[in-house]
Amino acid sequence: MPAERNGSGALPLTLLAEQFAKLPGIGMKTAQRLAYFVMGYTDEEAEAFANAIIHAHKTVHACKICQNLTDKELCPICEDPERDRSTVCVVESPKDVSAFERTREYRGVYHVLHGLISPIDGITPDKLRITELLKRVADGGISEIIMATNPTPEGEATAMYCSKLLKPLGIKVTRLAFGLPVGAILEYADEVTLYKALENRNEI
Amino acid sequence: MPAERNGSGALPLTLLAEQFAKLPGIGMKTAQRLAYFVMGYTDEEAEAFANAIIHAHKTVHACKICQNLTDKELCPICEDPERDRSTVCVVESPKDVSAFERTREYRGVYHVLHGLISPIDGITPDKLRITELLKRVADGGISEIIMATNPTPEGEATAMYCSKLLKPLGIKVTRLAFGLPVGAILEYADEVTLYKALENRNEI
Repeated sequence: MPAERNGSGALPLTLLAEQFAKLPGIGMKTAQRLAYFVMGYTDEEAEAFANAIIHAHKTVHACKICQNLTDKELCPICEDPERDRSTVCVVESPKDVSAFERTREYRGVYHVLHGLISPIDGITPDKLRITELLKRVADGGISEIIMATNPTPEGEATAMYCSKLLKPLGIKVTRLAFGLPVGAILEYADEVTLYKALENRNEI
Repeated sequence: MPAERNGSGALPLTLLAEQFAKLPGIGMKTAQRLAYFVMGYTDEEAEAFANAIIHAHKTVHACKICQNLTDKELCPICEDPERDRSTVCVVESPKDVSAFERTREYRGVYHVLHGLISPIDGITPDKLRITELLKRVADGGISEIIMATNPTPEGEATAMYCSKLLKPLGIKVTRLAFGLPVGAILEYADEVTLYKALENRNEI
């Protein structure tokens, strides 16, 4: 805590900087810069910031059905009568839901796992919302589950794990297609992506 | 506000993300990541964060003498009886005070301008704490003023401006030595470079 020792002195400022430094990707130097920046706020601005934290934390929770974050009992997607409830897209985090929604093409619903299986980080399957997914399937009406986790070792493992639990229930389990990203330069594509693109080639 | 439109839905979460996005160097994507991260806090952690903002903002203000940020009437440096009050090091921001204190060599006091003259950004000399500096000089007891602003055009202009006001008052005005690489940010300079720059200061 150099600010305390060296006499720039303001302990409350150090405490605020420490709060910023707890956030992912923010080191102590950036945290101090942010704390100084907040000092330049008006009283109203500082209160708005503090209230946004408290309010969001109090009102936002997981949707009862899909586990996406929402401030209502059900999220807008689960409540939308026009969404196709027979197709469930399983993703790692709420950010992935936003990403799929931006395509404006997917009309099914989602299931947010809130993480990926990663034993090395202590994230075992029971830490994820897999039980909730199995319960949704048991409740009936679902014909296809799309495993839309990242193409990383953890994402693959999670997709495999879920698929092994879901297939015996007579559910069609699919995985996102892997290939070249649109607009990619072939020369710079990595070997695995190129191999996947070749393997999953389609007739035109 | 894509989160609202696309149905990931949580308006309070969007509001919190917008608060983070107001901070310097944090874009909307990072802000959303930070907002999601805060959702994982316990109630106590979220409250501690909010309180740190309010508390720091309420209690931290400018020291009556040197204008550095403090939660007391005077900052610890101005209160320290062992500091040499005849030498005043003029800096842009509280972060620069911390940087000089880290050298553990400077025994004088400081004056924080809270900015640099930059007409293009609308920062005219009256927006800085220059009047307070002149008042300190008028109160007597100061024999040397070290202009320790960044070696950037704005820092140089500010140093020149202050020196022109101070010299007629019979004060010795010095400038940090150009051991500092031109264009560098003072806050990130290493201790030895900073100390050298301090040691080789020149009269201007």
